[in-house]
Amino acid sequence: MPASPRASRDWGRCDLTFVELAEGTAVAGVFTRNVCCSSEVELGRQNVAQGRARALVVNAGNSNAFTGYRGREAVEAIMVQVSAHLGCPQEQVFVSSTGVIGVPLPKDKAKAGIEAALLAEPCDWQAATETIGTTDTFAKGAMAKAVVDGRTVTLGAIIKGSGMIAPDMATMLGYIFTDAAAEPGFLQALLSAANQRTFSCITVDSDTSTSDTVLAFATGAAGNAPLTSFDSAGADAFAAALEDVCRQMAHLVVRDGEGAQKFIAVTVSGAVSDESARKVGLAIANSPLVKTAIAGEDANWGRVVMAVGKAGEPADRDRLSIGFGGTWAAREGQPLADYDEAPVAAHLKGQDISIEVDLGLGEGRATVWTCDLTHGYISINADYRS
Amino acid sequence: MPASPRASRDWGRCDLTFVELAEGTAVAGVFTRNVCCSSEVELGRQNVAQGRARALVVNAGNSNAFTGYRGREAVEAIMVQVSAHLGCPQEQVFVSSTGVIGVPLPKDKAKAGIEAALLAEPCDWQAATETIGTTDTFAKGAMAKAVVDGRTVTLGAIIKGSGMIAPDMATMLGYIFTDAAAEPGFLQALLSAANQRTFSCITVDSDTSTSDTVLAFATGAAGNAPLTSFDSAGADAFAAALEDVCRQMAHLVVRDGEGAQKFIAVTVSGAVSDESARKVGLAIANSPLVKTAIAGEDANWGRVVMAVGKAGEPADRDRLSIGFGGTWAAREGQPLADYDEAPVAAHLKGQDISIEVDLGLGEGRATVWTCDLTHGYISINADYRS
Repeated sequence: MPASPRASRDWGRCDLTFVELAEGTAVAGVFTRNVCCSSEVELGRQNVAQGRARALVVNAGNSNAFTGYRGREAVEAIMVQVSAHLGCPQEQVFVSSTGVIGVPLPKDKAKAGIEAALLAEPCDWQAATETIGTTDTFAKGAMAKAVVDGRTVTLGAIIKGSGMIAPDMATMLGYIFTDAAAEPGFLQALLSAANQRTFSCITVDSDTSTSDTVLAFATGAAGNAPLTSFDSAGADAFAAALEDVCRQMAHLVVRDGEGAQKFIAVTVSGAVSDESARKVGLAIANSPLVKTAIAGEDANWGRVVMAVGKAGEPADRDRLSIGFGGTWAAREGQPLADYDEAPVAAHLKGQDISIEVDLGLGEGRATVWTCDLTHGYISINADYRS
Repeated sequence: MPASPRASRDWGRCDLTFVELAEGTAVAGVFTRNVCCSSEVELGRQNVAQGRARALVVNAGNSNAFTGYRGREAVEAIMVQVSAHLGCPQEQVFVSSTGVIGVPLPKDKAKAGIEAALLAEPCDWQAATETIGTTDTFAKGAMAKAVVDGRTVTLGAIIKGSGMIAPDMATMLGYIFTDAAAEPGFLQALLSAANQRTFSCITVDSDTSTSDTVLAFATGAAGNAPLTSFDSAGADAFAAALEDVCRQMAHLVVRDGEGAQKFIAVTVSGAVSDESARKVGLAIANSPLVKTAIAGEDANWGRVVMAVGKAGEPADRDRLSIGFGGTWAAREGQPLADYDEAPVAAHLKGQDISIEVDLGLGEGRATVWTCDLTHGYISINADYRS
């Protein structure tokens, strides 16, 4: 990995991870669109604009969201403390927080936690991934390599999310580190594009967190000529590797979705555009009736029809085809006369489920990923009292 | 009630209800916006335009949705059969179907069912309400009266919906019968307005059925001067009575929501418009995290903040206030320093829950209604295998 993390787990519910980044590290980020976002998200979005990062700080246990000016002061205090230590501009310190909402981050504890982390020995990435997690049931990381300008660059990434327990908020925090050299603007363009096809194509329960953040850091240690556009040597390979780690991480979040027993890929083809296909896919992936049908191993394609129809996107009932695991159940608006449910039933007993929808209208195509909706989800979110 | 129903329950999963309406009865309707709607919905929407109705036929057990031309032929055969019997134009026969999707309505069985219903003795409305139901757990009806042009008119209504069991689709079918005289165009305007504040403000699980239909029939037997606009004598009283029965019926559907243990009213004020308030309310009412929190009797206002933020409507985190049962938990973007959770905890133990949200931006206001999300919902929709 192109950076070394340090962790401090000594202050109760607020575990802290600190990663120092080489001078000149390029940064790009994508953030939640939830308008009730945390101060961390507001400041992160603002600071990504200058393009450089020297440090990442992640608090786990307190999301610091909906905490007003006190929450914002706590984040700014962390930025001041870390930038003084590193001798860098304040806006090059990126802070994320995840956990309980509505409790201002305690400034004194955060200060002590950072002092401890700055002095700590570097830890391994497994430990760092565990430290940024809250109720995640396993540590999630991804790796990819690409040849850029004659040099092999590495992309390493860690992510937390989708394991949540009342009263904590669902949050997804992901960080990608690479030794490639890249201009911040181009890194941002690549991250935004990859995000659109990966993180923006997953859903566990349709609820958008107030803290979702994905940051990419490119230290430049590999020594390649900086990637500035798709004309740069190796840009395509790097973009593919970046999307690869984003997709790996997105899938891990879904596999650890609350109460998930099955991983579901919904592929929509024949839409009027890729974006329309993605929206239809998300309508299916967010339908409680579709998700419970999969939990019950029920090839209930009527519920898929319903979800397509409510998506608000162009669709024609009489051109619609629906299949499971590669077997069509309905074609062009009608159940197949010779539909054989046996292979579909066998497919639905597995853990990796695919749903195929062909709208029969155009060339638009997208795949989205979700998990089934089970008693486990209700137990995690309702049976627990704060 | 201004009409008498007949029922035929002799053909297995397709129970049939038939209501003959007096000549000249005005009709108005609102229908699902699901683009994969059934032929019944397509034909109903088309036939409402001519404004008059002589009969209503409801099949329960087979929604006839996603059945292509064969499904449409089955509906047209029913319309021909009933119109021949009554000697009326075909388009004055309104047909609804609810139940399993993707199986064409069997034409021979439907014909025999209608013959039986035409010959049957009138039944009472309790029996008719039970006959249109599928997996509803109780029969749902509503009544209201209004003085119009010196005469007391009655509005009676029946509805089914929200109890569903795989592989059946959720469907809501509602019928309002009144002896008032009203021009179809004005009746439609009143029904559309009432629908926007009642049926369009309820949600059980965010999944929009392919068959949802609400029809209003005005026979004119009361002998009032026909209502043609809000300038007609009694129009305001009639409009209020119509909205009253629509609201009663909408609430009954939510109270019978799948697995529901609590009835939840979400009131949003301070929005930029009433429509914006309704959308924010529905984002809260559709959030699985909010609904499971209420199921767990957990005053988790952080989840309400999240849902407001993801609604896609204007909101300002730092002006947002949230309460339960009339007690504020957070005001203007921050938890209340002196927040007393005791009255909130007591409120959440009840069956009728209210959530109050003040966006602090404008005068827009709306109330939406939903139910909690419980293990019962999962059991009904996942544990059963088709």
